[in-house]
Amino acid sequence: MAKAEKKKVRIVAARKEPRTPRNLWASLKPGRANFAPLSPVSFLPRAAEIHPERVAVVHGKQRITYAGFYERARRLASALAKRGVKKGDVVSAMLPNVPAMLDAHYGVPMAGAVLNTINTRLDADTIAYILEHAEAKVMITDRVYANVVGPALAKIKRKILVVDVDDPLYTGPGERLGETEYEVFLKTGDPQFAWKLPANESGPIALNYTSGTTGLPKGVVYHHRGTFLESMGNITAWPMPAKPVYLWTLPMFHCNGWCYPWSVVAMCGTHVCLRAVDPALIFPMIVEHGVTHMCGAPTVLSMLISAPAEQRRKFAHPVHIMTGGSPPPAKVIQAMEELGFQVLHIYGMTELQGPSTSCEPQENWASLSMGDRCVEMAKQGVRYQVVEGHIVGDPKTCKPVPQDGKTMGEILIQGNTVMLGYLKDRKSTREVFQGGWMHTGDLAVWHPSNYIEIKDRKKDIIISGGENISSVEVEIALYKHPATLLAAVVSKPDEKWGETPCAFVQLKEGVAATEAEYIEWCRNNLARFKVPKKVVFGVIPTTATGKVQKYVLRERARGV
Amino acid sequence: MAKAEKKKVRIVAARKEPRTPRNLWASLKPGRANFAPLSPVSFLPRAAEIHPERVAVVHGKQRITYAGFYERARRLASALAKRGVKKGDVVSAMLPNVPAMLDAHYGVPMAGAVLNTINTRLDADTIAYILEHAEAKVMITDRVYANVVGPALAKIKRKILVVDVDDPLYTGPGERLGETEYEVFLKTGDPQFAWKLPANESGPIALNYTSGTTGLPKGVVYHHRGTFLESMGNITAWPMPAKPVYLWTLPMFHCNGWCYPWSVVAMCGTHVCLRAVDPALIFPMIVEHGVTHMCGAPTVLSMLISAPAEQRRKFAHPVHIMTGGSPPPAKVIQAMEELGFQVLHIYGMTELQGPSTSCEPQENWASLSMGDRCVEMAKQGVRYQVVEGHIVGDPKTCKPVPQDGKTMGEILIQGNTVMLGYLKDRKSTREVFQGGWMHTGDLAVWHPSNYIEIKDRKKDIIISGGENISSVEVEIALYKHPATLLAAVVSKPDEKWGETPCAFVQLKEGVAATEAEYIEWCRNNLARFKVPKKVVFGVIPTTATGKVQKYVLRERARGV
Repeated sequence: MAKAEKKKVRIVAARKEPRTPRNLWASLKPGRANFAPLSPVSFLPRAAEIHPERVAVVHGKQRITYAGFYERARRLASALAKRGVKKGDVVSAMLPNVPAMLDAHYGVPMAGAVLNTINTRLDADTIAYILEHAEAKVMITDRVYANVVGPALAKIKRKILVVDVDDPLYTGPGERLGETEYEVFLKTGDPQFAWKLPANESGPIALNYTSGTTGLPKGVVYHHRGTFLESMGNITAWPMPAKPVYLWTLPMFHCNGWCYPWSVVAMCGTHVCLRAVDPALIFPMIVEHGVTHMCGAPTVLSMLISAPAEQRRKFAHPVHIMTGGSPPPAKVIQAMEELGFQVLHIYGMTELQGPSTSCEPQENWASLSMGDRCVEMAKQGVRYQVVEGHIVGDPKTCKPVPQDGKTMGEILIQGNTVMLGYLKDRKSTREVFQGGWMHTGDLAVWHPSNYIEIKDRKKDIIISGGENISSVEVEIALYKHPATLLAAVVSKPDEKWGETPCAFVQLKEGVAATEAEYIEWCRNNLARFKVPKKVVFGVIPTTATGKVQKYVLRERARGV
Repeated sequence: MAKAEKKKVRIVAARKEPRTPRNLWASLKPGRANFAPLSPVSFLPRAAEIHPERVAVVHGKQRITYAGFYERARRLASALAKRGVKKGDVVSAMLPNVPAMLDAHYGVPMAGAVLNTINTRLDADTIAYILEHAEAKVMITDRVYANVVGPALAKIKRKILVVDVDDPLYTGPGERLGETEYEVFLKTGDPQFAWKLPANESGPIALNYTSGTTGLPKGVVYHHRGTFLESMGNITAWPMPAKPVYLWTLPMFHCNGWCYPWSVVAMCGTHVCLRAVDPALIFPMIVEHGVTHMCGAPTVLSMLISAPAEQRRKFAHPVHIMTGGSPPPAKVIQAMEELGFQVLHIYGMTELQGPSTSCEPQENWASLSMGDRCVEMAKQGVRYQVVEGHIVGDPKTCKPVPQDGKTMGEILIQGNTVMLGYLKDRKSTREVFQGGWMHTGDLAVWHPSNYIEIKDRKKDIIISGGENISSVEVEIALYKHPATLLAAVVSKPDEKWGETPCAFVQLKEGVAATEAEYIEWCRNNLARFKVPKKVVFGVIPTTATGKVQKYVLRERARGV
């Protein structure tokens, strides 16, 4: 009772106060008319309203209009709801870049559920771990992955609804694993399903497991607000014009395709599906569909450059390609430009819901030599419009390092496009958000121009005789050698120095080179202590997203 | 005590429950690392980081770089803070489109204050009313308005800080009214002022008084979240490319220049200032600065079209012009296209923080005749990406009308770009948000294509013999007459019919026409009951933003 009385007194007192500026605005609060939760799902109904007959999705000979795409998404949401999928449930999808994957980016959140896209290169054990950890209620999968998804489903203890995509474009092996085929399942859904925006814009929309190069994969939770803003950021940073034609050379399972399943729809563009990254398909598709935009790791760019002449096609229109995952080597940029591509380098990571910086071109780069311009373009660049804080800082204090292009620090990020956190892993979430900043684990320098340049992953730095050696710097030297197709440098334990750099080089086809040649090359291009003690030739293992698997190489380095 | 016990029991029960999907996500909440308040103010530090040397503002021979612009904004924020301006205080500005007005869009919110831009055509009484109602602490004004601002300041009871802009480009009459000149005042501020984002993104950023064609002006409160999203909406709906060159033909006092002071900075573009809309200045500026984008009411377009040949300049690059306030007449669109402009029609209002729909072009319009295409382009169109709900509905029930292109309803809007409400006017705020929708007061039909077409302002509809007559429809017929420069139709009280349409026509220079001719013209173009009973020739009064002042004409109609 005393408490209630006190409250009453306070209200009376407030009324007696003279009008202060704070009181001036106090009654003005957001409500139903002037507040709506931000969600990228909203882009689809709008596109369907405005351009119902426009082609939203191209897949082989199949054409899906925006009206059709919205109908498919609502049917999927309804079909899931009918099978008991509820708010906050996880729907997993292990799919190539096919229409069902695009449907899932809208239909799953329209059912209030969370989309968990699974890396298609994973093994059965890891897939089973993810399905268990995410407590997935549904698995949508393509026949092509039956040989791993089948065993994965057998391992998990619960029975979940399995929906098979049986794509007419895929005629290879792989049986159906579930009780229903995707297109049949869609038909069970109501095309007029009355979906709702999430009550809370900071609620989960997607769940992406990190590739797990060390330890168990972590479940990165994406939120509606963040993915809406990231989608807008893609548009304003590139920038993406109205009605782009977007070719899916980036896997949609990777950070939800950097949020492009949503960005492209916001601009009422056309998605061109692609089951596998194959230059023999890509070049003709660019010409046939008038592709204007695409994304991919530098390895995708390398594939296009190395494509045999008979696979290449000339195209008259500019094709914009956004690349990230690792810095694009100078000769890759140059070769891509010669093919007619306009390259933009971005930096991001799963925890950032896609790109976070872009290497925004400067007008004065036009006067640089090709080599110097490529050096600039390979930097990670500057923050997206939608990213609030982006510094190179001390990992402990989170204070920025000097912008001198020399002092190394960790890339630290603050803002709405940072993930919500790791699923069921408060410890890792707390650690990665220590000090109120997202710790990327990437070591970089900060240039006076404000551009950030990554020197290494925190765990990839080589400490030799007490000196830091950036594996990236050694790799850049290796890439300059004309015989190099791919290069990677890792630490090798050493009795004298603690660690020494060990180089792995994949040579171009039909080219030969020796270890001695490469070591000599490095001596001419690097400080003495940075020169690799060992050079190993062979195919370099990469992840599904084109990243070099350094943990595999570190293992190998121990043995050579 | 009973209540507390009950609560405790409930918590225990919840802990005993098996893990439900809701629990899965419960610990993941936005915090410092992954949440930042949305504010358009954030665009300026980013642009200054990335393009410090780029020209942000052009004013006569003056060039302000992005580093300089950011410094000016911080100095303004600091100077205001030093003079006691606190969070939530109102800073008024009555300025032409000069650099100080751009500074104010950043510096005022950086001080935590609210920017109140005042319509430069207002009289002393109304200005005094606004300063009193807004409880303004500061007035930034330009010498050119001294003859009204002086008397306005004399009328208000408080002493406020008056800062004069003494623009070297203005050499006309008007004394300084305050104690300090703007550039001197700026110098008192700290260029490193440590400003902060607002704690609450739904807090006020700006205050715009409606033109007050009926009753007292109402103070429309803009919020950080809404103006951030509106700024992004401008970019994605037009869409606006990187580094636009934006000419200020739209007054910045009008809905904060439709949020373009922020949008242009988000894209690191260049603001080209303009003190007055004068074709003799505009055409050479388009050529000299390579202007790519501009905005204005259809009357601005008419001025450009009617400019004498010696004032016109040819330009090779496309210039995009966004127009709104009233539908652009077909011949205005056609003439603008012939001059080399690309016209996009938008619809918005003060309460919507700028444009809310755009008349997004459809690919099949290319096959239409010029006349038919202009009819399509004059529709209000479809919602911005950032607008959640946009319907033509029953004002009472807020249920949508059929999309038949015939049934009239009110344009009702929901979403983040809707104002926070009216300052110190709970009754009007409640009324305009009735049913959880913003009631625009505009009557429209909804086409099967989803495009909205305004038929009239609610208060401008003419009810004649029980039949509704859209004043807009009659105006369209009048505009088709080759002698018409401007046309407006209002109701005239009539004993027999209740009301009848009364037409006001401003003829083109050097052209003559009679009332009988116009009535005959309307008979051939309209249903009989819609034909004006009276046609009055003369100059049509418009507001500062180019809108016809119908309340003046209604007054006149009573006397003719």
